[in-house]
Amino acid sequence: MKLWSKGYQVDKLVEQYTVGNDHLLDKRLVIYDCQASQAHAEMLYKIGLLSKREKDQLIQGLNEIITLNNEDKFPISQEDEDCHTAIEKFLTDKLGETGKKIHTARSRNDQILTALRLYEKEHLGQVKEFLKKYQDALTTVIEQHGEIPLPGYTHMQKAMPASVEMWLGCFLASANDLQMFTHSVEKLIDQSPLGSAAGFGVPVFPVERQYTADKMGFSKVMDNSLYCQMSRGKFESTILHLLTQIMFDLNRLASDLILFSMKEFNYLELPIEFCTGSSIMPQKKNPDVLELMRAKFHLVQAEQQKMLNIVANLMSGYNRDVQLTKEPVFNAFDVTLESLLLITEILKKIHFNKDICQQAMTEELFATEEAYQLVNQGMPFREAYQKIGEKFIKK
Amino acid sequence: MKLWSKGYQVDKLVEQYTVGNDHLLDKRLVIYDCQASQAHAEMLYKIGLLSKREKDQLIQGLNEIITLNNEDKFPISQEDEDCHTAIEKFLTDKLGETGKKIHTARSRNDQILTALRLYEKEHLGQVKEFLKKYQDALTTVIEQHGEIPLPGYTHMQKAMPASVEMWLGCFLASANDLQMFTHSVEKLIDQSPLGSAAGFGVPVFPVERQYTADKMGFSKVMDNSLYCQMSRGKFESTILHLLTQIMFDLNRLASDLILFSMKEFNYLELPIEFCTGSSIMPQKKNPDVLELMRAKFHLVQAEQQKMLNIVANLMSGYNRDVQLTKEPVFNAFDVTLESLLLITEILKKIHFNKDICQQAMTEELFATEEAYQLVNQGMPFREAYQKIGEKFIKK
Amino acid sequence: MKLWSKGYQVDKLVEQYTVGNDHLLDKRLVIYDCQASQAHAEMLYKIGLLSKREKDQLIQGLNEIITLNNEDKFPISQEDEDCHTAIEKFLTDKLGETGKKIHTARSRNDQILTALRLYEKEHLGQVKEFLKKYQDALTTVIEQHGEIPLPGYTHMQKAMPASVEMWLGCFLASANDLQMFTHSVEKLIDQSPLGSAAGFGVPVFPVERQYTADKMGFSKVMDNSLYCQMSRGKFESTILHLLTQIMFDLNRLASDLILFSMKEFNYLELPIEFCTGSSIMPQKKNPDVLELMRAKFHLVQAEQQKMLNIVANLMSGYNRDVQLTKEPVFNAFDVTLESLLLITEILKKIHFNKDICQQAMTEELFATEEAYQLVNQGMPFREAYQKIGEKFIKK
Amino acid sequence: MKLWSKGYQVDKLVEQYTVGNDHLLDKRLVIYDCQASQAHAEMLYKIGLLSKREKDQLIQGLNEIITLNNEDKFPISQEDEDCHTAIEKFLTDKLGETGKKIHTARSRNDQILTALRLYEKEHLGQVKEFLKKYQDALTTVIEQHGEIPLPGYTHMQKAMPASVEMWLGCFLASANDLQMFTHSVEKLIDQSPLGSAAGFGVPVFPVERQYTADKMGFSKVMDNSLYCQMSRGKFESTILHLLTQIMFDLNRLASDLILFSMKEFNYLELPIEFCTGSSIMPQKKNPDVLELMRAKFHLVQAEQQKMLNIVANLMSGYNRDVQLTKEPVFNAFDVTLESLLLITEILKKIHFNKDICQQAMTEELFATEEAYQLVNQGMPFREAYQKIGEKFIKK
Repeated sequence: MKLWSKGYQVDKLVEQYTVGNDHLLDKRLVIYDCQASQAHAEMLYKIGLLSKREKDQLIQGLNEIITLNNEDKFPISQEDEDCHTAIEKFLTDKLGETGKKIHTARSRNDQILTALRLYEKEHLGQVKEFLKKYQDALTTVIEQHGEIPLPGYTHMQKAMPASVEMWLGCFLASANDLQMFTHSVEKLIDQSPLGSAAGFGVPVFPVERQYTADKMGFSKVMDNSLYCQMSRGKFESTILHLLTQIMFDLNRLASDLILFSMKEFNYLELPIEFCTGSSIMPQKKNPDVLELMRAKFHLVQAEQQKMLNIVANLMSGYNRDVQLTKEPVFNAFDVTLESLLLITEILKKIHFNKDICQQAMTEELFATEEAYQLVNQGMPFREAYQKIGEKFIKK
Repeated sequence: MKLWSKGYQVDKLVEQYTVGNDHLLDKRLVIYDCQASQAHAEMLYKIGLLSKREKDQLIQGLNEIITLNNEDKFPISQEDEDCHTAIEKFLTDKLGETGKKIHTARSRNDQILTALRLYEKEHLGQVKEFLKKYQDALTTVIEQHGEIPLPGYTHMQKAMPASVEMWLGCFLASANDLQMFTHSVEKLIDQSPLGSAAGFGVPVFPVERQYTADKMGFSKVMDNSLYCQMSRGKFESTILHLLTQIMFDLNRLASDLILFSMKEFNYLELPIEFCTGSSIMPQKKNPDVLELMRAKFHLVQAEQQKMLNIVANLMSGYNRDVQLTKEPVFNAFDVTLESLLLITEILKKIHFNKDICQQAMTEELFATEEAYQLVNQGMPFREAYQKIGEKFIKK
Repeated sequence: MKLWSKGYQVDKLVEQYTVGNDHLLDKRLVIYDCQASQAHAEMLYKIGLLSKREKDQLIQGLNEIITLNNEDKFPISQEDEDCHTAIEKFLTDKLGETGKKIHTARSRNDQILTALRLYEKEHLGQVKEFLKKYQDALTTVIEQHGEIPLPGYTHMQKAMPASVEMWLGCFLASANDLQMFTHSVEKLIDQSPLGSAAGFGVPVFPVERQYTADKMGFSKVMDNSLYCQMSRGKFESTILHLLTQIMFDLNRLASDLILFSMKEFNYLELPIEFCTGSSIMPQKKNPDVLELMRAKFHLVQAEQQKMLNIVANLMSGYNRDVQLTKEPVFNAFDVTLESLLLITEILKKIHFNKDICQQAMTEELFATEEAYQLVNQGMPFREAYQKIGEKFIKK
Repeated sequence: MKLWSKGYQVDKLVEQYTVGNDHLLDKRLVIYDCQASQAHAEMLYKIGLLSKREKDQLIQGLNEIITLNNEDKFPISQEDEDCHTAIEKFLTDKLGETGKKIHTARSRNDQILTALRLYEKEHLGQVKEFLKKYQDALTTVIEQHGEIPLPGYTHMQKAMPASVEMWLGCFLASANDLQMFTHSVEKLIDQSPLGSAAGFGVPVFPVERQYTADKMGFSKVMDNSLYCQMSRGKFESTILHLLTQIMFDLNRLASDLILFSMKEFNYLELPIEFCTGSSIMPQKKNPDVLELMRAKFHLVQAEQQKMLNIVANLMSGYNRDVQLTKEPVFNAFDVTLESLLLITEILKKIHFNKDICQQAMTEELFATEEAYQLVNQGMPFREAYQKIGEKFIKK
């Protein structure tokens, strides 16, 4: 029931509008925020802002949260707003004054940036892993069925001879480039924003940014605090670009698979467990998973588009607008990782109708070859082209 | 915990991928699907496919669902997939064979189209109502404070004299056009798709499409069944265009309000209940609600962009891809309605710093007027322009 | 040769950057700006700012420009920046002081708005006219070939029986709605911005906005001057939405035509004059025009997306950013009008392979009908569904 | 005058629709196509398909074209369609049969891909160079004025102390990352597609793809011919993503500059040669160049969005749709390179109003520091926060 549907209280509406579903989204960030908070606590101890006992208590408390969260027992309510508040509240309830000290010398602005970046690093790692599974599946199909011939199409018309090897090899070659690109993106985001506070660094306290960066496993520190802020949304747009590129390949592969499995082509059959029936037509076997994979490219693409538009035309420094850059990243990772897993499963179980593929290799596919043979025998290409061309136009 | 995070079962993954959060989204459609199903049951009775008793039982059962749903007691599980299955299941559990009959002579394709369209009709009505509240608030502020002067800006530089009346009158005039446009969109979608089945009409049974359309309050029937399918996503893109237009006005108004409330301008003060503080900077009073309103324009805009891209380059007839056109509509209506309510509340409570506005009316704002006075006294405009211009360049 | 390619002069680069190709784009606006200027001159005469002689000279001069422009003899150079300057310069060269007076009591801001709106009005008229031709072509094909059967597809799989009438009837029904929508958009933009000057009205001079609006054939005046400014880009985004909707239909129709003309379907043949060959494959007959039509939808869609992003997050009042909203409108009108003409020509000449269509009506298309027949004979639908379903799964 | 404006001939309309402005756009590709053709001729000679004399003649002819083109004397007409035809025609006119032989063993599909990629390689190099100039300008300003204080803003409200060094250092740090990203993109596109012909390789002739790749300076060959086709539009979308990232920084910097140069802030003054006046308001000095720079981000962003939408949902293999992927790349490179040059010039000439900046460092900016001082003296942060906070709320 929407708050505005009947009557509404302004304060509740404001809460809903500003918090939105952040408290739900933030479930994913709990573990990363705890990791970052542990590094922060270590550093506060190192520079003398926490006693050893306080530091140990905080680290222990954060470990408890991680355990609870893993068991799905660390709820974040809408009043908590986000995981950062929920975590601080837990620590304060448990440790009193000591709990409050975890927020010394940092701001929610660098806290969320850091948690997000840790989340992103881990998920980019997962992207590489799932891409690898997908590459393996492609390689296996090519090894098993690569020699099956397939018509090659241009302008959606039979053009020249191809094969399963050439067709799927295209996606394999592309996946190699995607791995390389994932690596570049990983390198870009592997920079610690912790210590940039609200975007202008931490006054008074001698925070050690390199120390926390090392603890969290970042390769370097983002020295300019304001750049930490500007990177919010911007780095994410590059991540989304990468995921869009991956989803584009799956969109293309899904399009091919749906087309080639149409009865009018019948070059292959899709595994039944990835298809569904119709509520009205008893004969149907529909490629729903692939249709949705095709469509989900557009979801990820739209998330990418949204990202920079949100922050364009704004002045430097944190603006609340960036809150909306969080969900697109989560969505896009989910969609991409799920899609990679599913296409991997589908590839493993495709059945090629070898005979039908063979029969589809009709003579027009060999027209270029024929013309080239004539050239090889000394006929100028344009003449050979015309000669062979006439043969088909007449038909 | 994502299904793919540890190990995963293919069938569970397929379910998650194809159903997604449809079972949650569909909560909003339950009531509309019940209304449509009641109209459908009446029609089946009229053409003799249901007995009076069966029809009455079905209508009674559907009323029960509406009641349960209003009390938030009609859950839809992921296995149910969507509200249509959950509703049919409820009816079948309760009424046995009779329950199954509700699906006679229709397909899930026209069922979802119909429910969505009823949802959209009602929510467009709400848009008009909330736009009206917003217009009233604008009118009230203009009545109360319209005469307060404000600098008018071009190129973000002081240009010519304006006033609260001219400034807010701009949004009021625009809101009038938005009302008109909402009316056009309502007219477009006020067409019943029920009876188009899977997109090719209902064979054998003499369904009466005008009868169900009348029952549901649609002005007309979409006669071409395939057009019903093509309208999915397409009509929604027009709805989203409308909501984007509304959100654009709020983006602009929010931008103005944030700027004018900066201490550097200080023309007005934002009501404190729509602002928040900072976790690190004790002095801050931040215009979070307005920043998010500015940002949420981009959400709605991105939903609009996504809509037609999903269905472009596809062949005619239902494709599963359209499933992804549902959530954007829900999101965009929520965002727009909430934003309209909030801006209305904010407008009611803006405080204008009248003296500061008055002081801001510096002489360069009157340069055009001065030049025109010279023209009125007989000097050619280009000469007057130059003469007045020099006065300011020197400064 | 780009200015920056070798060495460059800053002032030239600034000119290029700020003027861009406006001087070329503005060729299309010359006639509309002259019309608006004539109405403005009449009004200046009416309120006593021009003598009758001056007014007559100006109107005569503007007529000359129109004539020159029709003969493609009214060049606008990059130094002129835009048509407004070129026109004023022409009048001043010819009429001296009188020429300069045409700019009294207006700004380039309302001048360009007015010219654009007149351009848009006329081109929306043309859209309606070309839509009508397209509707006529659809009607003719349906009259001639409507009874030819076609398989109806869902999920890109044969689903239920359809026909040329149902298939093209879908586009015809949609075109009717598009006409209605064009009418709504026309109504929206049929508002005169002339007299809003830089966005804050004209001081000193008693300009008569209704008078010029009447002269130019606008239905009403936009009373709020600042709204005139806000409508720039915003009205255009609605025009682009309309054109996107039209192009979407053509994208869908092109997709169908390309698919149905593939040899694997062969339901129809495309007229040879809209196809091209290949530089390497002598046998090819490629549907280039339709492929480009499919693609050009995305051009228009991208223009729409760009439009509001350019002006979002900005403060009220004219910002130079809006200059970039001009070209998208011209592009989108060109693409849409050309596409409508071409699809009309193509429709007239499609050849249906009637026998092949007939043979394609295989039995699975009739499965729903069969099941419904069983229901008609008393079998519950779910049972009938299962019974018929088994028949096909076995195959 | 548009072809459809009066009456029209179908064949002319088809030509315009399919060729569009390709013949104009292709001016930029002439030199790259000639380079690729020279490498191709060398290879044809190496594998015995050209005699030495033929090869030498072709290379000489291509050199002539390059010279003519550099002098702007190699026109491409609409009938030529594109540079490839124009070049082949020139060679054939000049060399007869030998001229025709240049097209042996290649297709226009790999020809355009290769020319585009060479164009892109060179322009990415230029991006790096212009980024470097921009970085140098930032460094210089920081060296000269870095110590000037500036208020740091969050939520568009004064937050904490910053400086010219921190503010511009943000853009400098980002530019370093952009250089790295440019390098990654260069690596991606540094792959030769020549020899992939229509997307399925060259039959009969033993083309040597590594040989031509080496001649043209590519690091590697794209082995899978179909991937060459799939990379069209896809690689470009990554290039456009890079350019979007660069333009985003300029959008942000322009936004800051426009804001900070408003009289209400007056932190700095923009160089007059990058500003323009108003046609009606004699006092105005408008930041047009920066406004357009802000807006042009959206142009480049829209080009990126368009790119993959054009090719999504399509089957593998060349589709004519990709023709529309060419212009966006040219536009985006032009806009980005021009913008980099201009911002570099502007940075060199910004004047900071040092005294005003100093006066703007009001006490609320130091609230966090004050609170931290209290913490340093032993007060818990939340208490210190509240104590300092009260001081400001009261005001």
